[in-house]
Amino acid sequence: MGIVVQKYGGSSVSDAAAVKRVAQRIVRTVQAGNKVCVVVSAMGDTTDELLDLAEQVTPTPPGRELDMLLTAGERISMAVLAMAIANLGHEARSFTGSQAGVITDSTHGRARIIDVTPGRISTALDEGAIAIVAGFQGVSQDTKDITTLGRGGSDTTAVALAAALHADVCEIYTDVDGVFTADPRIVSTAARLDTVTYEEMLELAASGAKVLMLRCVEYARRYDVPIHVRSSFSDRPGTTVTGSIEELSMEQAIISGVAHDRSEAKITVVGVPDVPGKAAAIFTEVARAGVNIDMIVQNVSAAQTGLTDVSFTLPKTDGSTAMTALTAVQGTIGFARLQYDDQIGKVSLVGAGMRSHPGVSATFFSALAEAGVNIDVISTSEIRISVVTHADKVDTAVRAVHTAFQLDADQVEAVVYGGTGR
Amino acid sequence: MGIVVQKYGGSSVSDAAAVKRVAQRIVRTVQAGNKVCVVVSAMGDTTDELLDLAEQVTPTPPGRELDMLLTAGERISMAVLAMAIANLGHEARSFTGSQAGVITDSTHGRARIIDVTPGRISTALDEGAIAIVAGFQGVSQDTKDITTLGRGGSDTTAVALAAALHADVCEIYTDVDGVFTADPRIVSTAARLDTVTYEEMLELAASGAKVLMLRCVEYARRYDVPIHVRSSFSDRPGTTVTGSIEELSMEQAIISGVAHDRSEAKITVVGVPDVPGKAAAIFTEVARAGVNIDMIVQNVSAAQTGLTDVSFTLPKTDGSTAMTALTAVQGTIGFARLQYDDQIGKVSLVGAGMRSHPGVSATFFSALAEAGVNIDVISTSEIRISVVTHADKVDTAVRAVHTAFQLDADQVEAVVYGGTGR
Repeated sequence: MGIVVQKYGGSSVSDAAAVKRVAQRIVRTVQAGNKVCVVVSAMGDTTDELLDLAEQVTPTPPGRELDMLLTAGERISMAVLAMAIANLGHEARSFTGSQAGVITDSTHGRARIIDVTPGRISTALDEGAIAIVAGFQGVSQDTKDITTLGRGGSDTTAVALAAALHADVCEIYTDVDGVFTADPRIVSTAARLDTVTYEEMLELAASGAKVLMLRCVEYARRYDVPIHVRSSFSDRPGTTVTGSIEELSMEQAIISGVAHDRSEAKITVVGVPDVPGKAAAIFTEVARAGVNIDMIVQNVSAAQTGLTDVSFTLPKTDGSTAMTALTAVQGTIGFARLQYDDQIGKVSLVGAGMRSHPGVSATFFSALAEAGVNIDVISTSEIRISVVTHADKVDTAVRAVHTAFQLDADQVEAVVYGGTGR
Repeated sequence: MGIVVQKYGGSSVSDAAAVKRVAQRIVRTVQAGNKVCVVVSAMGDTTDELLDLAEQVTPTPPGRELDMLLTAGERISMAVLAMAIANLGHEARSFTGSQAGVITDSTHGRARIIDVTPGRISTALDEGAIAIVAGFQGVSQDTKDITTLGRGGSDTTAVALAAALHADVCEIYTDVDGVFTADPRIVSTAARLDTVTYEEMLELAASGAKVLMLRCVEYARRYDVPIHVRSSFSDRPGTTVTGSIEELSMEQAIISGVAHDRSEAKITVVGVPDVPGKAAAIFTEVARAGVNIDMIVQNVSAAQTGLTDVSFTLPKTDGSTAMTALTAVQGTIGFARLQYDDQIGKVSLVGAGMRSHPGVSATFFSALAEAGVNIDVISTSEIRISVVTHADKVDTAVRAVHTAFQLDADQVEAVVYGGTGR
């Protein structure tokens, strides 16, 4: 008897009627001969409503209390889902993250899972019950306080539980049919991928594909948990994330898909003295402010001036934090000024096959040039090429690249969109 | 430095503005030199909204899951209250019933507190923080599942914590000014009591006074915790519940007040064979159905028939359960038929002084007779006389008795009304 972990996002349990539909799907999975552990997010807009309530009493809620507040959302959805399953004649028991043994560090708002000790879940499954677990939450190992895992947290809860329970598969239910070769809202001919490797999915997620969060895929790869991403609104198969690029056969498609990301901004530090240690000083300062940077480019020094420019991209949400931190050390580092640009977009091509096909870069850049897309920054990995361009050019770039690699319609493999996931 | 436990009901934290007002009152208590532990109920209509949600998925929610659902209400209010306090520059830490060490039995929906181990609360208070505890909830000693304490549960949480923390006082904040000599909505001249003994408050609560629940007062008496019932909407002093009737001086008022209760119904078992064991059989059956009965009266047997009638009162909410249980054993017990009457009301006079004043009963019954109130059932204790009459006659009876004992306006001591408390 296999164990299946299913995760349902907020849009899949938006109201009582949706919860009842999900209950029926869970019961069908049980009737098919599986032990089922379900991870559930807060219903619909609950999290936003709770955040609104917090804002009404303070502009700066303490992280500990905000986590206590937000975890009420999953508490409600999991209890109601358990009731809906009971109403279908099956026993379901709901468990908080703490009860399910999701042990984290103490970083409120974006805690990391340290360990999962799902003793109570295993007992429930062994006793024939369906286990319903609150996603997105855990309990701090040190302080015993309630924590939340941050964006995409429920997906991570599901994968972590699947690993700890040695589940056969972790099914992530969302409002889209799986992972696509591009965002179907931009490329109408985008195709759904049947399978994609962990490495490719990691690159896609890091490049802006929203259907799965990066840390969830990282966790799945580390513990070798197959993820099946599919829609809770249909019975169609979705996309299975599994396997390594090392195992791919030569016949495998070269390219999985085209991802894009409009969530980043670019900061350019202008007039940096071109002497050793200046770049290190800049990025040390940014890191100290708690800002994660993505791409970095340093322009060639103008020989006459002995000055250079350093650009980097970062989440827009960290923009003002980074600008403030750098402004404070302008005198120490000795740069001329800062430029901030949030009208940028990143377009990435991902595919395991590009390792052994040297022509990929040429095709990629040719397609962008023919479409009139200017390239600002370039970054590559073994299985990915990314460029930064103007935000207005993102759609054009995605379509041009999608067509150039013959991904349109019935032509094979992968990227992503949609899903607000937590 | 004394410890004060404060409990705020749902009407005191109905919205963000109300929560902020409560936060200010808590901070003032801290500034006056106290360590403060706060017990809070769910905000306004939250509990009803959660019950509505449950009803949308099933008519019969499992108790375990209903408790999981409802406890989300206090989780929200306590976190928001802690945030509002933080916004005033004081540290507050919220704790679930489980985190606060409220250990109960496993009876979902009306669990009883077995033990309170408030280690984390004491630590928080010692570290200078304000502790905010979710009322109404605990954790089962046996199953480790979340439980709720049922009606008036938050008051009981507060008193239990006050006892465990050896607090100086347990302040119960509500939407009325304290305990009155009668319900001011019925008797406009009802007066607030300054103090009332535990025994009198127990009788008042058992007789329909809603400002404090019976079990909360029982708990306070057992652990000798003074309760101060007062309004969260004013700074006026309320009513202090403390001391034993044994300690009362001779000058103490004879009567505390007049309570009434319209929540009961009466069942009459007609034509019961007047032989030993029949009454026992009836009440055994009712008890087996889980129904608590209040007053019992057995009519004198009609000599000719060898049959008698047995009447008893019970909560209206248990009416159909009791009727069903008795109907099932009609053949075995051999009674003729059942009568059900939910148009009844109980009026009670409570006062420690009536022990030593034999004329109290006479005055009580004379006042009712003069007001034209028919008496159906009578029950007494050492410090209480209760009668059952028609529901329509309750207001008339309360006013007549209140006047007969000179309780109007500035004439001394105590009963109750209002507050939906949980």
